Amino acid sequence: MDMKLHPVLSIRLFKDEKCFGPGIAQLLERVEEHRSLRAAAQSMGMAYSKAWTVVRRCETALGFRLLHFVTGGSGGGGATLTPEARDLLGRYRAYCARLESAARQIFSVTFDGFEEDPHGL
Amino acid sequence: MDMKLHPVLSIRLFKDEKCFGPGIAQLLERVEEHRSLRAAAQSMGMAYSKAWTVVRRCETALGFRLLHFVTGGSGGGGATLTPEARDLLGRYRAYCARLESAARQIFSVTFDGFEEDPHGL
Repeated sequence: MDMKLHPVLSIRLFKDEKCFGPGIAQLLERVEEHRSLRAAAQSMGMAYSKAWTVVRRCETALGFRLLHFVTGGSGGGGATLTPEARDLLGRYRAYCARLESAARQIFSVTFDGFEEDPHGL
Repeated sequence: MDMKLHPVLSIRLFKDEKCFGPGIAQLLERVEEHRSLRAAAQSMGMAYSKAWTVVRRCETALGFRLLHFVTGGSGGGGATLTPEARDLLGRYRAYCARLESAARQIFSVTFDGFEEDPHGL
């Protein structure tokens, strides 16, 4: 492999402390898919207790609930995203997509000609 | 404290693997300042051996030298940045500044009204 130099971003949202990032975003998407925090965590190879800690920490930092738990019923209970979580997740994904597009564009301008220079060891 | 939600970026450059990021950028800036890798590492609380590893790993990934070592002389030897390192560092800092500016702008559009919504626990 001889890939060209390219940017890799890690995009996190903070208030006083870290609120939201790629890990919790993926976990919420898996909850949407599996309708269960336990199944979501399992699908990511994450311990259920760890998933709980991640969700609780983000909820506390953000100041609102991310998950709504349904107990019992014919499906045996489960979890869904709150409307606020769905709103935040949608905006976060849109934000990442827009920023990554800008990152590629700004990179091509800022690093124009860099790899053509004779940078031999 | 009750800071508003804001983005925090981590910006790294990759080829096949990680080549450059905030750690090596700071180390190179300290080398510029102190004219010595040992003094640069010390000023960051980093072991000299670790600084060497960081520099060597980046040089290998990038395919060119970052540091030029001067041995002996009246100053007792030291290190300076190669022209390629100075070029890369300048472009990286410009890139971070431009991208962070874009990140704030895109954030204000993408998260417009988000914190005004009633997101109570």
